Amino acid sequence: MKKIVIIGGSAAGPKTAAKSKRMNSENIIELYTDENLISYSACGLPYFIEGTVKNINQLIIRTPEDFEKQGVKVFLEHRAQKIYPEKKCVIINDKEVFYDELVLCTGASPIVPNIKNINIDGVYFLRRVRDGIKIKEAMHNSKRAVIIGGGFIGIELLEAFVHNGLSVVLIESCTRLMRAFDSEFSDMIKNHILERDGQWIEMHFGQDVEEFIANEEGKFTKLKTKEGLEIEADFCVIASGVKPNIDLARDAGVEIGSKGGIVVDETMKTNVKNIWAAGDCTQTRCLLTGRPVYYSLGTIANKQGRVAAININTCPKVCEKFDGVLGSAITKYFNYTMALSGITQENAARISEQYDLHPISATVVKKDKAGYMPDSENITIKLVADKKTGKLLGAQGIGTGDVNKRINAITSALQSGLTVEDFLHLDLPYAPPYSSTIDILLTAAYRLNGQIKDKNW
Amino acid sequence: MKKIVIIGGSAAGPKTAAKSKRMNSENIIELYTDENLISYSACGLPYFIEGTVKNINQLIIRTPEDFEKQGVKVFLEHRAQKIYPEKKCVIINDKEVFYDELVLCTGASPIVPNIKNINIDGVYFLRRVRDGIKIKEAMHNSKRAVIIGGGFIGIELLEAFVHNGLSVVLIESCTRLMRAFDSEFSDMIKNHILERDGQWIEMHFGQDVEEFIANEEGKFTKLKTKEGLEIEADFCVIASGVKPNIDLARDAGVEIGSKGGIVVDETMKTNVKNIWAAGDCTQTRCLLTGRPVYYSLGTIANKQGRVAAININTCPKVCEKFDGVLGSAITKYFNYTMALSGITQENAARISEQYDLHPISATVVKKDKAGYMPDSENITIKLVADKKTGKLLGAQGIGTGDVNKRINAITSALQSGLTVEDFLHLDLPYAPPYSSTIDILLTAAYRLNGQIKDKNW
Repeated sequence: MKKIVIIGGSAAGPKTAAKSKRMNSENIIELYTDENLISYSACGLPYFIEGTVKNINQLIIRTPEDFEKQGVKVFLEHRAQKIYPEKKCVIINDKEVFYDELVLCTGASPIVPNIKNINIDGVYFLRRVRDGIKIKEAMHNSKRAVIIGGGFIGIELLEAFVHNGLSVVLIESCTRLMRAFDSEFSDMIKNHILERDGQWIEMHFGQDVEEFIANEEGKFTKLKTKEGLEIEADFCVIASGVKPNIDLARDAGVEIGSKGGIVVDETMKTNVKNIWAAGDCTQTRCLLTGRPVYYSLGTIANKQGRVAAININTCPKVCEKFDGVLGSAITKYFNYTMALSGITQENAARISEQYDLHPISATVVKKDKAGYMPDSENITIKLVADKKTGKLLGAQGIGTGDVNKRINAITSALQSGLTVEDFLHLDLPYAPPYSSTIDILLTAAYRLNGQIKDKNW
Repeated sequence: MKKIVIIGGSAAGPKTAAKSKRMNSENIIELYTDENLISYSACGLPYFIEGTVKNINQLIIRTPEDFEKQGVKVFLEHRAQKIYPEKKCVIINDKEVFYDELVLCTGASPIVPNIKNINIDGVYFLRRVRDGIKIKEAMHNSKRAVIIGGGFIGIELLEAFVHNGLSVVLIESCTRLMRAFDSEFSDMIKNHILERDGQWIEMHFGQDVEEFIANEEGKFTKLKTKEGLEIEADFCVIASGVKPNIDLARDAGVEIGSKGGIVVDETMKTNVKNIWAAGDCTQTRCLLTGRPVYYSLGTIANKQGRVAAININTCPKVCEKFDGVLGSAITKYFNYTMALSGITQENAARISEQYDLHPISATVVKKDKAGYMPDSENITIKLVADKKTGKLLGAQGIGTGDVNKRINAITSALQSGLTVEDFLHLDLPYAPPYSSTIDILLTAAYRLNGQIKDKNW
């Protein structure tokens, strides 16, 4: 029996709590969060704003009452202020809470860019449920929105706003959209969005927002960029990414890594005794190279919460390891899917010396089903591999057809370190409504193999 | 430079021809077929019959002219009669054709059950393009059809006929539909079909058709089974599976295996010098157990044709191997997908002693997307693993949601011999429109892992 105190209530925290209780019903589990609800799907917020998800309560996975029934004590609106590792104590809402094991699931916060007047009305970040509610309200009262940031959340908000009849200006400081992808994919994504909805959408790249301008009521009315651009809109959402919440941890002597997140080993232990961490507040490792990486994703948080709970309950015996991630991600713009897993060619080139990589790639455009099926659609898949070892390094896919399936199929191949030569014999299920006889993945693998073997096979 | 003679023109033959020519443009390539066309998608025939594919020519992948342009000589309606391996000669349409390398791609033929009057009008098999045309015509002139056989083709024809407003009787000699799956999946598939379309469909199991009865014009009008059932219908399609065409090969001393197909090594060589084989006329090996298996699938034929062509051109150097298959397959009944890969639990149990298998399984019913997305659908996934080694053995999936993606993701895991423990950390791309935070595949893997570790994890 242990007293396990968990700080944070979005994904990793509730997972750790529930799993710890299931593993030993005598454990005392206390979960503290500074929010007024727990266990919700932050990833669903863009679809709540869009209207696809009608009721915000649908995003609540489990209520505090659900957890209480299971025997987990939930403390809403409780802020953890300071940890005293020697005393195994954490100060929460000015009171001492003692623990046997402490799990930090403090999550991440939006990156707040250095913009003048950033705190005026009509400027939003999207992170928590209440943000989603506010943005949806703003959207319904507006005709024109501006989004700062052209990453996953930016694109999802773009869809939501366009779907609701707004005109939208998207501002990106980088020269391209969706930087998780290689440049040519960014361009194809941009072109697709503008071809589909160019009459409603303006995009500006390489623009650093410098100042927000408020109207007489103190509400957002315009932004200015360092490059001299001025954009008027009814409201503004900043989607410039997130950073891990690590102040509490750092103050307690917990190691923070080069990616800005809490450093944990594969059991989810930090460097400080009896302190564990999981979810968006931690950095992790790339499964393919071992290099430190940072992602803020519910899937990782859930897996890490599970591994933390298992090891907390079995330690010092290590019964489960979280080795790292591939960096798989997916989103859509209406019926257009964008997905990737592993390392892009540009990223592989960037780290090629350090990790002895020799990236090559093959990009194929092909129908997602048998070409004669009337609902077959072109998709574009790029496979990246290492010329020296022949191992697959990553895949990117875009298109209105079934890209999702292909990137899912690649993940197990990446995770198991398959070479292109192994992969090209992959026995994928085939029928005309589902793929072409030679699936686009295999076509891409054949082309890569030709480069690896330097033969025209 | 070699003279390569290829017998057979559906999938493996054309692939071998095209690839051989690409590898060495000086090769003399002759492709002989007893049909009047080559390089077509037989798998598309049910969708042509249904009307999804409007024009039969859409199923032609490449014409003889396409091949001629590439320098491959195509001989339509040429039947290979006898091989003289010593003379490196094959008799085709009563003439001697000499070869350096001979590639047998003789395909497979429908299994013709022992039924009285099987040759009357109104009884069809579905294999070749002309069969598809005839069945479509029969369907358009009919109100009621009977299908003998409840496998993949039987189900696809069922969809086609129901879609075209016919009532359909399905007769199956076995006690269940879709025997490639475990029994409980067969039942769920049957229940789904009957719930959806029970008013149009009758199914009878454990019925051996004994006799067809013709009307005065000699046309099918009724069938009788040994069990005493009598079914009237306007026409009948027999879809009782296929068997490899091996007479030509066997007569030449080519080894035929326990599964009835030509035995080839991983280079696609037969036991007879300078004779190779690929596609539906060959048997292959299960990648997971090494046991001989037989499948008739365009995907396998294409891969084998490619491997044959490479090795024919590089031999005695072996430059590519075809190691075997997982037995992946997929089909649909309207929006209901049925897919599998690897070994079912029942099959694993059947061969457990011989191959030292200890099959365990976990079946999960879960939404295919985040549960709050309005278009999320329940799917059922069963994972099978070996309790002793922890390795994944197979997966089956059914449902109106995205089953296809899950089975595709499993194939690379099976092909690389991943254990359940490796698999459950799989970093699958996640977003609410595409999956739940903990994908059904991982939920199933967690449950399997609990059984393997004998712990409640």
